[in-house]
Amino acid sequence: MKLQQLIDQIKLKKSFLCVGLDSDIKKIPEHLLKSERPVLEFNKAIVDATAPYTIAYKPNLAFYESRGLEGWKDLEDTLSYIRKNYPEIFLIADAKRGDIGNTSKMYAEAFFGNMNFDSVTVAPYMGEDSVKPFLEFQDKFVILLALTSNAGAQDFQFFSNADSKPLFTQVIEKSKTWGSEQNMMYVVGATKASMMLNIRQLAPEHFLLVPGVGAQGGSLEEVAKYGMNKQCGLIVNASRSIIFAAKDATYAEKAKGEAIALQIQMESLLAEFKVI
Amino acid sequence: MKLQQLIDQIKLKKSFLCVGLDSDIKKIPEHLLKSERPVLEFNKAIVDATAPYTIAYKPNLAFYESRGLEGWKDLEDTLSYIRKNYPEIFLIADAKRGDIGNTSKMYAEAFFGNMNFDSVTVAPYMGEDSVKPFLEFQDKFVILLALTSNAGAQDFQFFSNADSKPLFTQVIEKSKTWGSEQNMMYVVGATKASMMLNIRQLAPEHFLLVPGVGAQGGSLEEVAKYGMNKQCGLIVNASRSIIFAAKDATYAEKAKGEAIALQIQMESLLAEFKVI
Repeated sequence: MKLQQLIDQIKLKKSFLCVGLDSDIKKIPEHLLKSERPVLEFNKAIVDATAPYTIAYKPNLAFYESRGLEGWKDLEDTLSYIRKNYPEIFLIADAKRGDIGNTSKMYAEAFFGNMNFDSVTVAPYMGEDSVKPFLEFQDKFVILLALTSNAGAQDFQFFSNADSKPLFTQVIEKSKTWGSEQNMMYVVGATKASMMLNIRQLAPEHFLLVPGVGAQGGSLEEVAKYGMNKQCGLIVNASRSIIFAAKDATYAEKAKGEAIALQIQMESLLAEFKVI
Repeated sequence: MKLQQLIDQIKLKKSFLCVGLDSDIKKIPEHLLKSERPVLEFNKAIVDATAPYTIAYKPNLAFYESRGLEGWKDLEDTLSYIRKNYPEIFLIADAKRGDIGNTSKMYAEAFFGNMNFDSVTVAPYMGEDSVKPFLEFQDKFVILLALTSNAGAQDFQFFSNADSKPLFTQVIEKSKTWGSEQNMMYVVGATKASMMLNIRQLAPEHFLLVPGVGAQGGSLEEVAKYGMNKQCGLIVNASRSIIFAAKDATYAEKAKGEAIALQIQMESLLAEFKVI
């Protein structure tokens, strides 16, 4: 997908919501466990309920990998289902991969080639040659970890040089030279929204993937205030607060309700900041 | 596996060689492509040829993931084969994972629970809560990226604070408090062997997983000189230089030759540094 198609979708749906498909088989409604493919059924129902309010889905690879072959099959079939029924949706492999060049190339082939994801989250620790192979695919995006939403973000991402420049800033400055906003985005946690001002100065045009709204406590207003640019520039992810909004037969309906609530807030923020 | 079992194996086999199963289906001998399971057959032959000289195998997950379900099946069956026939071998999932706590927990279940690896490589960027879930498994090891062997290691791993302390040093210092040498190791590239002196001061007892000998050009003598401790403290990996030593029907024989050549060097270094 080209960046412009993503922007068009945001304007059309008046939403910059990504739903994280962290579909933990231990947390999905119990009645689904009787079906042959519980996670696949769960994902399909969540997608059908939320797609009109959603511009991206982000399956978290760990929740599929941890179930071995069955999990991979559920992931592949979920992707096919979304591609077939909602071809406009931006698909993010939340994989946080990153390895030496020849290995990253294999990961890129896995996520972009075989699975046809539009983007993949990549960890920056191993530097340029670990990221470049992902950038060689046309109309695909690297979403590089910059400032994450978890507590452990404090441990290394704020490690600062003699000019008080923290590592996450160095990651953005350096990696900006490897690609452009047409093939790179950054992960910036909503729990650190005030840092976005700083990040927007460094990367005014890049899209930011923002986790941490919802279960992790980040504020959508703050994210928009500090992070939105004239093309929106934000993909805000909510996972558990949407997909596990209810644990009974009403789960899809409740997920829809949560997605709509976020879309309504997003529409008003997009209007306030004159994106639409 | 407990650390002592690994040490015992090193002393018994007089080797600290790990063979990296980066079994790229495009690089294995052509005649194998006619068989039903080319990669599995290749792995079995490599393992049978090298196991007497090898203390660890390290499948690189990318090479299996990139082939979807088929690749995962080859990985699982390779692991079963090694477990059954060479139960003394230390198994490393070269996965370089790392995510927020609840996600890392799923990865830990995948690699330690389902697949029964002894260890997994983990990327440090997301900090403590991304590593801790792996440390909660008994007799399993996190192998944390510290200083990698690729060119991109320069980009962020040497990013230094006001006291000229580089990030990779900070990673070791901080992470040492999360576990002990009984459940943590570090990745330190052979191409940066002289840095090992520094690392050994910080982590005298921890094992180091050392890639970059062979195809990437690191020297085994240098690694031993700077990195060996009284329990050996080293697992040196070679991948392509062993498994792709020949592309014809002699590939297993040639792999065996390469493994023996390294084992002989290792035996003499273990004696020189009085480990055996």
